[in-house]
Amino acid sequence: MSTQGAEYVRDQRYLTTRITADGRDGFPVEPGRYRLVVSRACPWANRSVIVRRLLGLEPVLSMGICGPTHDERSWTFDLDPGGRDPVLGIERLQEAFLARDPDYPLGITVPAIVDVPTGQVVTNDFAQITLDLSTEWREHHRAGAPDLYPEGLREEIDEINAGVFADVNNGVYQAGFARSQGAYERAYRRLFARLDALSERLGTRRYLVGDTITEADIRLFTTLVRFDAVYHGHFKCNRTKLTEMPVLWAYARDLYQTPGFGDTIDFAQIKEHYYVVHRDVNPTGIVPLGPDTSGWTTAHHREELGGRPFGEGTPPGPVAPGEAVA
Amino acid sequence: MSTQGAEYVRDQRYLTTRITADGRDGFPVEPGRYRLVVSRACPWANRSVIVRRLLGLEPVLSMGICGPTHDERSWTFDLDPGGRDPVLGIERLQEAFLARDPDYPLGITVPAIVDVPTGQVVTNDFAQITLDLSTEWREHHRAGAPDLYPEGLREEIDEINAGVFADVNNGVYQAGFARSQGAYERAYRRLFARLDALSERLGTRRYLVGDTITEADIRLFTTLVRFDAVYHGHFKCNRTKLTEMPVLWAYARDLYQTPGFGDTIDFAQIKEHYYVVHRDVNPTGIVPLGPDTSGWTTAHHREELGGRPFGEGTPPGPVAPGEAVA
Repeated sequence: MSTQGAEYVRDQRYLTTRITADGRDGFPVEPGRYRLVVSRACPWANRSVIVRRLLGLEPVLSMGICGPTHDERSWTFDLDPGGRDPVLGIERLQEAFLARDPDYPLGITVPAIVDVPTGQVVTNDFAQITLDLSTEWREHHRAGAPDLYPEGLREEIDEINAGVFADVNNGVYQAGFARSQGAYERAYRRLFARLDALSERLGTRRYLVGDTITEADIRLFTTLVRFDAVYHGHFKCNRTKLTEMPVLWAYARDLYQTPGFGDTIDFAQIKEHYYVVHRDVNPTGIVPLGPDTSGWTTAHHREELGGRPFGEGTPPGPVAPGEAVA
Repeated sequence: MSTQGAEYVRDQRYLTTRITADGRDGFPVEPGRYRLVVSRACPWANRSVIVRRLLGLEPVLSMGICGPTHDERSWTFDLDPGGRDPVLGIERLQEAFLARDPDYPLGITVPAIVDVPTGQVVTNDFAQITLDLSTEWREHHRAGAPDLYPEGLREEIDEINAGVFADVNNGVYQAGFARSQGAYERAYRRLFARLDALSERLGTRRYLVGDTITEADIRLFTTLVRFDAVYHGHFKCNRTKLTEMPVLWAYARDLYQTPGFGDTIDFAQIKEHYYVVHRDVNPTGIVPLGPDTSGWTTAHHREELGGRPFGEGTPPGPVAPGEAVA
């Protein structure tokens, strides 16, 4: 992150090398060659965890999972035996960034995709990663995989995503990391105005675009699922809890209860990350016991709106061995 | 405040001189002689503001109002023209404590009752102050004043008050000021266990003790009314919001809508106090815009439980001139 005056400004410079079917950047799609490194805590990484699972890419793209907390040198593999990723053999994700560029000057972020043979990060461009999983890795999708980024709907999806990114995904950070009352209030107002508009849109349709789950739903979900657990209190996004916004709450529960969404969510790790890492927001590092999350599995009645979650496809099967949330 | 290990321990040493009908401590009840100093932000002071109003003591006991924020020298009269209390002529409440004892070693707290002729604090013993307003100042109560501490119910009221103080009134501070995860968790669990027990009790009866408003209701109300605005997020008391505990939420709204309760509440000052003063909890001092407080005036249906809010008495009249919340 970086700050510019009182507004929080996300450093949006990433390693933008792409893994493509035609390998034009030197990194062709290839089963078993790459490792997706994530943390369950991180909303940006959560997108790629969900997409990988919905598309059934587990057999061809392995996944390393960093722990929820980190120090100034960023994410570590402290959840793994011996504190090392078993495939990459490293303790810190930073090592894979430095393998790519010994003078790497930017943020050590998840998600990152590492080229296993060289141990180098190929890309940490989170917004492109999920789109490429949908479009460039198509040959390796499971049978029945949904089309999360259908050609005919891309313009609409991109437009929704732009607003959701600015005001919701990143908006909660702008509220929480604001350095002035004014910067906070601007972010808060944009956030809730956008959430109200999304509530309105979702009042009569099951999903954001078309009648199936798309990339747009995934991107909104990863912020909504963290809303009451961290953004409401820790980031002062507290006009209302998600549980007090009936349409969005039902929409989020619907997705949560869909295979590939809720089974990627670890509320304990999510809370630990935000409350322990951001000592400038929460000096004691104490992690709240709340909120009560039992409501996530209650009936949502969104199926009454119609919609076909996976379109012509099918839900993903069980979570891959070793990847279940504890 | 003081801390002892990881648990927050409230300094409960106060100036315990009492103003009584018989004047046995040298300070007899006397119209116009004393000034009650409060801050609208403070829950301990809020009790005395409510009791004074319910009993109609405004004509005989004037009230000075400190601003919501303060520095290490504590409460100031920054809301008054020129930053001075118009009756006491002081800028800081500390001056009245030092007038009483130049070496006064304890906390400068509200509520405090000041002897106007000498400018000295008589008492800041918040728990005794309201009981004395009910019992020692009886001669000066308005016609129709309720009996907030009826003799036949005192044992029951005292017992309820003891549990509410330990787990709720002070419990929220123990959660918010805990210095360890364990101390926080113990406070959180005691708090919600007590709130659940109170919900159970209040499910079938309109008020905590007897069938009228008593001191017990006032003491619970002043914490409940601050719950979502500050304790839920700022003090991490976040299992559920008050608005998500149906019985307590209806009970709190019933009181809020009763003359003498809601008309003493200034949500803006409450939030400003906690979020600005406790920089060790909220380093930026940014004050949340939420929560939405519009629900406080919605129907509560508690009258269906019966009860006689003021017993044989009547509600208080309009707020005294100059004392209305902005």
